[in-house]
Amino acid sequence: MKKIAVVITNRANYARIKYFLVAANKSKKLKLQIVLSGSSLVYKYGELEKNLRKDNLKVSAKAFYLLDGGSEIIQAKSTGIGIIELSSAFEKLKPDFVLTVGDRYETLATAIAATYMNIPLGHIQGGEVSGNLDENVRHAITKLSHYHFATTKKSKQRLIKLGEEKRRIFLTGCPSMDLVNSKHKRIHKNFEQEIYGTGNILNSKKPYIVAINHPLSTSTKENAINAKIFLETLLLRSEQIVLFWPNADAGNDILAKTIRDYRETRKMNNFSFIINISPENYVTLLSNSICLVGNSSSFIREGSQLGIPAVIVGDRQNNREIGNNVIRSRFEISAINKKIDLQIKKKNFKPQKIYGDGTSGKKIVKILENLQFDINKVITY
Amino acid sequence: MKKIAVVITNRANYARIKYFLVAANKSKKLKLQIVLSGSSLVYKYGELEKNLRKDNLKVSAKAFYLLDGGSEIIQAKSTGIGIIELSSAFEKLKPDFVLTVGDRYETLATAIAATYMNIPLGHIQGGEVSGNLDENVRHAITKLSHYHFATTKKSKQRLIKLGEEKRRIFLTGCPSMDLVNSKHKRIHKNFEQEIYGTGNILNSKKPYIVAINHPLSTSTKENAINAKIFLETLLLRSEQIVLFWPNADAGNDILAKTIRDYRETRKMNNFSFIINISPENYVTLLSNSICLVGNSSSFIREGSQLGIPAVIVGDRQNNREIGNNVIRSRFEISAINKKIDLQIKKKNFKPQKIYGDGTSGKKIVKILENLQFDINKVITY
Amino acid sequence: MKKIAVVITNRANYARIKYFLVAANKSKKLKLQIVLSGSSLVYKYGELEKNLRKDNLKVSAKAFYLLDGGSEIIQAKSTGIGIIELSSAFEKLKPDFVLTVGDRYETLATAIAATYMNIPLGHIQGGEVSGNLDENVRHAITKLSHYHFATTKKSKQRLIKLGEEKRRIFLTGCPSMDLVNSKHKRIHKNFEQEIYGTGNILNSKKPYIVAINHPLSTSTKENAINAKIFLETLLLRSEQIVLFWPNADAGNDILAKTIRDYRETRKMNNFSFIINISPENYVTLLSNSICLVGNSSSFIREGSQLGIPAVIVGDRQNNREIGNNVIRSRFEISAINKKIDLQIKKKNFKPQKIYGDGTSGKKIVKILENLQFDINKVITY
Amino acid sequence: MKKIAVVITNRANYARIKYFLVAANKSKKLKLQIVLSGSSLVYKYGELEKNLRKDNLKVSAKAFYLLDGGSEIIQAKSTGIGIIELSSAFEKLKPDFVLTVGDRYETLATAIAATYMNIPLGHIQGGEVSGNLDENVRHAITKLSHYHFATTKKSKQRLIKLGEEKRRIFLTGCPSMDLVNSKHKRIHKNFEQEIYGTGNILNSKKPYIVAINHPLSTSTKENAINAKIFLETLLLRSEQIVLFWPNADAGNDILAKTIRDYRETRKMNNFSFIINISPENYVTLLSNSICLVGNSSSFIREGSQLGIPAVIVGDRQNNREIGNNVIRSRFEISAINKKIDLQIKKKNFKPQKIYGDGTSGKKIVKILENLQFDINKVITY
Repeated sequence: MKKIAVVITNRANYARIKYFLVAANKSKKLKLQIVLSGSSLVYKYGELEKNLRKDNLKVSAKAFYLLDGGSEIIQAKSTGIGIIELSSAFEKLKPDFVLTVGDRYETLATAIAATYMNIPLGHIQGGEVSGNLDENVRHAITKLSHYHFATTKKSKQRLIKLGEEKRRIFLTGCPSMDLVNSKHKRIHKNFEQEIYGTGNILNSKKPYIVAINHPLSTSTKENAINAKIFLETLLLRSEQIVLFWPNADAGNDILAKTIRDYRETRKMNNFSFIINISPENYVTLLSNSICLVGNSSSFIREGSQLGIPAVIVGDRQNNREIGNNVIRSRFEISAINKKIDLQIKKKNFKPQKIYGDGTSGKKIVKILENLQFDINKVITY
Repeated sequence: MKKIAVVITNRANYARIKYFLVAANKSKKLKLQIVLSGSSLVYKYGELEKNLRKDNLKVSAKAFYLLDGGSEIIQAKSTGIGIIELSSAFEKLKPDFVLTVGDRYETLATAIAATYMNIPLGHIQGGEVSGNLDENVRHAITKLSHYHFATTKKSKQRLIKLGEEKRRIFLTGCPSMDLVNSKHKRIHKNFEQEIYGTGNILNSKKPYIVAINHPLSTSTKENAINAKIFLETLLLRSEQIVLFWPNADAGNDILAKTIRDYRETRKMNNFSFIINISPENYVTLLSNSICLVGNSSSFIREGSQLGIPAVIVGDRQNNREIGNNVIRSRFEISAINKKIDLQIKKKNFKPQKIYGDGTSGKKIVKILENLQFDINKVITY
Repeated sequence: MKKIAVVITNRANYARIKYFLVAANKSKKLKLQIVLSGSSLVYKYGELEKNLRKDNLKVSAKAFYLLDGGSEIIQAKSTGIGIIELSSAFEKLKPDFVLTVGDRYETLATAIAATYMNIPLGHIQGGEVSGNLDENVRHAITKLSHYHFATTKKSKQRLIKLGEEKRRIFLTGCPSMDLVNSKHKRIHKNFEQEIYGTGNILNSKKPYIVAINHPLSTSTKENAINAKIFLETLLLRSEQIVLFWPNADAGNDILAKTIRDYRETRKMNNFSFIINISPENYVTLLSNSICLVGNSSSFIREGSQLGIPAVIVGDRQNNREIGNNVIRSRFEISAINKKIDLQIKKKNFKPQKIYGDGTSGKKIVKILENLQFDINKVITY
Repeated sequence: MKKIAVVITNRANYARIKYFLVAANKSKKLKLQIVLSGSSLVYKYGELEKNLRKDNLKVSAKAFYLLDGGSEIIQAKSTGIGIIELSSAFEKLKPDFVLTVGDRYETLATAIAATYMNIPLGHIQGGEVSGNLDENVRHAITKLSHYHFATTKKSKQRLIKLGEEKRRIFLTGCPSMDLVNSKHKRIHKNFEQEIYGTGNILNSKKPYIVAINHPLSTSTKENAINAKIFLETLLLRSEQIVLFWPNADAGNDILAKTIRDYRETRKMNNFSFIINISPENYVTLLSNSICLVGNSSSFIREGSQLGIPAVIVGDRQNNREIGNNVIRSRFEISAINKKIDLQIKKKNFKPQKIYGDGTSGKKIVKILENLQFDINKVITY
C-alpha cells in the first residue's frame, strides 16, 4: 500500500480535503497518514480531532507550531517551527507521498519538509490566483510540488504557463466541492443546535446573512479599520447575522478584539457567533443564507457552486476566478450595505460548476493509486 | 538612507555577493546590514568574519541554524531554524529591503522570513535552471521575491514566462562576475601560501586541475558511489590536483568521509586540500588552472567568463546555460578521464560574457538607490 | 556601566520586577536591557509594552516563543523555542548580567540561555516552596543561578541548605512588595474605569471578592473539574466578583473555555472579568477587597503584606510560607464557600512583612552596582 | 509492560547506559524505547546505530538538535531545539518513565521535555560533583528528576542534602562500571583493527598512553592555549599515544582544529587518532594502557575501577570523587610530563569499587520493574 500523508492545519483546511480523505480511507491501495497541526490542535479553535473520529479518520501524528500572537513575525516563526515539527512527523511516518491543499503561510512548511526530504509532493489548488501573501505562497508551493491537482481549467492553464510539466498536472476540481451536494443543502433537525457557538440562536427559517472577515496579512494596519467598517455595516442590517471568528492569520487578534469590544458595548442581539462548525453544516449554512458578505474564498468557491449571492469585500480575493454570484465592494460602510441589498434582491443564481463536479476526492484517489511517483521534475522552458 | 539587509550563508555565497556589498558600502543612499549565518559562522568551514573585516564590511547580526549531520532531514530542519533566526535578525535590523542570492536550500529561509514580515525581497540568479533540489528552490524563491536581478538574458526571459512583472525584473548580470577581472587573473606573491590548507603545497607554475564534487541532494544514495568514482579518476592524473571539501549540503558527510578515507589509505602526494579561500584567490586559482573538473556552478559561470576548460560531471548542473568551455560527462572513471584529456588539449577558450560584464554589483546598487519598493506584485497572466 | 538584562514573560511577571526596573533605570552604574517575551507580546493578554512606556522603560529586544494551545507538550516546546529566542536576544544585547524572577516554566529558558552563554545569572524568589511543576522549576533555576535574591529569611536558609554559597545569597525581599504601599491602597478617581475589562462595572464602594484560578500543570485532568467547582462556588456569592482570566499555563484553555461557557449560560451580572490591569491598580484592587479566593501566589505575598483575608484553594500553593491572612480549602463548593464566609467575618488582618519591607528593588540595584560578577560557583558540600 | 524511554546523546553517553539497556531489553516487565539524538546521529562522530544493532537494541525515535559550530551560544540553541525534538519523541512513544544519565548540557533538554509533559524522570549520576558547566547542569537535573540512581555513597548523601526525598534515591552504582570486567580487560584478536581510526596502527603489546582533552565550556578562551599545551606535552613522549577527538561541546572546534594543524606540521608517527570505539574496546584500551592523561571523567570512574594510573589535567574534573589512581596537574607542559613519568613508575594500582560493583544495570532494571512511579515530589526541608 502506498502511504499518503496529509497535513491538516485548521478546520477550514480540513473541509477542503475531507472528501479526499474519506475516499482514500476506503482505498485498498492507499494507506492514509493524517498529521494534525497548527490551530487544529488548539482548544479554542475547536476540537478537530473529534470531528475526524466521527468521520472514521485516524490521526497518525501531531505537529505543534502555532505561536500565539498575530503579528507578521509570528507567521514567519510559526512556519519555521512547522518545518521542524513536520519533518519529525514525516521521519516517523515515512510516507510515499505528501498531499497538501491551499495557500496559507504554513502550507509552505509542509512543502519544504516534504521536498527537502525527497518525498514526492502533490498540491491541490495550484494555479489559482488571489490577492494577499497567499498569492505568493501558492505559487512558491507550485514550484516545489511534483504533482498538481488543478481545481479549474484556468488554473491548469496557468500551471502550464508557470513551466510545470503537463504530465504532472491533473484537472480534478477541488475536493471541497464534493460536499456541495443536494443532501447537505437541506436543513436537518439538529442543525441550529449543532452550529451554535455564542450569541443569538439562529432561526434558519428566517433570513440570515453569513459574514466572515479574515485579516489581510500584507497590510495589517488596514485590518483594524476594516474590522470596524465590517461590523458597523453588519449593525445596519435587520436580518440575522451569522458571524465567524477570524482565522489564525497575522492580524487576527485585532479583528477578534474588535468583535469582543463591539459585543460588550453594542446591541448585537441578531448576531450568532460561530466557533466550530462541521464542513457539512457549513454547506447547509451557506445554502440557506440570503447573502454572503466578507472575504472568505468559500463564498466564491462554494458560493458559485450553490448559486448564493455574495458580496466580496476588499482585496483579499482579488483576481480569483469568480462566478455570477459574486459582486465586489471596497471596505466602505454604505457601499457594502447597498451591495448587500442589491444581491439579496437578485435572489439565488444558477449554480456553476467552476471548481469541481463533486467527485474530486475520488479522482485524486484514483490518480494516486496508479501514479508512479517521480521527483525529478524539469521546467518546461 | 535605505537599509538593505543581505544574508550570507557560506563562503561561496559571500563570493557571489561580495562586489555588490563593497559597492553598496560606498553608497550614500544605502545602509548595508550584513547578516552572517549558517556555515559562515562555523569554525571548520573557515572564519568568514575575518574576510569581511578585511573588505571593510561589518556584521550587523548573526543567525545560527546549521544542524550538524548531512542527511536530508537536516536540510529541512536547518531551514526551519533559519526562519526563526532570520526573522529575529530582521526584527532587530528592520531593513527596508532584503537582498538574497542563489538557490541553496537555506536561501528559502531568508525569502520566507522577509516576505512573511512584509519586507520587500530582491533575488539574484532567479530564472536560471539547473538540476537538483536547487532547481525547485530557486523558482520558489522567484515566486516569493518582489524584485529580480537576472544574470543572463535567457534568465530574464524565463522570469517573464514564470509570470513575473517586467517592471520588477532587472538584467544586471551576476556580481560574482565582477571579480573575474584581469587584476585577479595573475598569480600574486603570497598566493600559494594564502590558499594552503593541507596536503601538497601547490606549485602554481606547474599544471594543476581544480576539482570540486558537491553532493546531489535529491539522490543521496548515489553520492557515496560518485564520491569514489570522482577520487579514483583524480588518482589517475599526474598533474597537481587542487581538491575542495564539499559544501554543507545533505550528503556532504559521506563525501568528506570518502576523502578522509582515501587520504589515509592512498597515495595523494599531488593533492592540495583547500579549506578556505578568498573570492579573489579563487578567481586566480581558476584562471591558471589547466582544467576544472566536477559539478560546481562556478566552473560554468566564472569558467566561461575566464575561458578555462571544464568537465562538468553528473546531473547537478543539468540545463544550466553554459559557454564553450564546458563539456559534460557521466560519473564514470574512464569517461571523465578522457574528457579531461580532451579539454586540456584544447587549451583555453575565448572568454564569454554570459553571466555579466563585471559591473553587476554597481548596477544593483544604482537600482536599489532609486527604486521605490512595493510588495504588491501580481502574476502577469 | 554594567548592562543588566531582564526578561519579562507576562503581566504578572512584570508586576514582580517592576520596582527593581524603575530603580535600576535611575542608576548611573547600571544600564537596563529589557527583553519582552512570551505572553507579554500577545495582544489578547494585554499590551504590556504600553505599560512599560508609561513607566519610562524601554524595550531592548523581543523574544517570541509562546505556542498556542494549552497542553503540557506546549510548555516544553515553548521553553525550547524560548531558549533559541532568548539566546539571540542575549547575543544582540551582550549583557553583563541577567536577572530573572519566579518559577514559571519558561523562566528556565532564560536561565539556560544565560548560563550556557557564560553570562552571570541572578534569581529572585529562589528558595521558596510551593506545589506544582513550579516547585521543581524554581529549584532547578537555583542550581543554575550564580546569585540569589531571597525574598524571606526561610528562603535564604533553604538556599544555603541547597548547597549554594552564602556569599552568593542576598536577603532582599521581593520587589513585588515595593508597590504594596499606602499610596496604592486608596482607590483613585479613574480606578474602576481603568481596570474595566468586560461584564459588570465594579462599584468599589460596595463589597467585592477577588477570584483567580490558575491551572495546575501537573494534574491537567483535574483542571476541568476544578474550574467548574470554582465558578459554582462564586455563583453562590451575592457580593461583586472580580474574576481574572487564567494565565498562559498548560490547562488554561479548558479554564478559559469553562468561564466562557458559564458566561453564556448562567447569570453572572455581579461578575467583572479583568483582562489587563496595572500592578498598582492590582494592589488597590486587593487592598479594598473583602476576600481573596483562589490559588494565586499574590494572595499569599501581597495578601499578607496588606492583611486581606484569603482562601487558598487546592494544591498549587502547597508548602508556601503564609501569613495569618490565609486559610486553605480543598476544591469543594461548600468548603470554599464556608471558608469565604469565615474569612469575611474576620475582617482585615494585621499586615505582616514576610516577603519584603518595600525597598527590595533598590536593595537589588545597590547590590548589582557593587558586585563583581563571578560564574565559578561551587556546591558547599 | 512499563515503557522506559532512554535518550542517547553520543557514544560516551551510550557507553554509560549500555549495560542497563542490555539488561532492560531482557526484562519481561519493561519495554525499552531508545531515542537516538545529537551527535549520535552525526556521521563523522561514528555511526552509533550500527553498534546498537549489534547489541540487539532497536531505535524507536530520533531527535536532531546538534547545531554545527562550537561556540557557547550553540550549546544554548541546541538545547532549545533538543526540547522541541525530544517532546515530539515522547509524544510519539508515550513512555511511562524516562531515564537519563550524566550532566552534559543537552541532558537538560531531556529533563525538561519529560517533566514538563508530566512523565516521571529518573537520573543516573545525580549528586556527583565536578567543575565546568556540567556541575550546574547536573544539579539542575537533580531538582527536576523524580528518581535518582546514585553512583557512590557520597553522591547519595549529597542528594539527600540537596533536599531530595530518601525514598526517591537508590544507590545502584553506575552502569558504565558493569563492563569493567575481567573479560573486557584482555586484548582480543581484532582489537587493534577494530579501534583503528587514522594515524599510527596501535601495537598494544608495546606501551601506550591514552590521551583525551575535552573543552572547558566555561572558559573557552583557555581552550585554545590548553589544546596546544596538551599536544606539546604528548609530543615529548616516546611511547605510543592513543588520542581521542574532543566531544561536541562548545570549544571543540578549536581543539579539533589544533589537532589537525599539528598533524599537518609536526611529526606524530606514534599517534593513533581514534574516531569511533565500542564501550568494550574502550575498557580494553584503558586496561592495557600504562597511563591515562587528560580530563575525561572515565579516567576517574573506569580508571579507579581498573587501577590504571591517571593524570587529570585542568579544572574540568575538579571536586570529583577520585581513587588512588589519580593525580592532578595544571595545564603546564613540564608539570604534566613529570606527573606522567611519576605515574608510569608506580605501575598499576589496586582496583577500587567506588562507582559501582558491576551490577548497576541489573539493579536499576529491578527497581524500575517494581517501582510505582509518582511525580509529586517535595523538598525535604
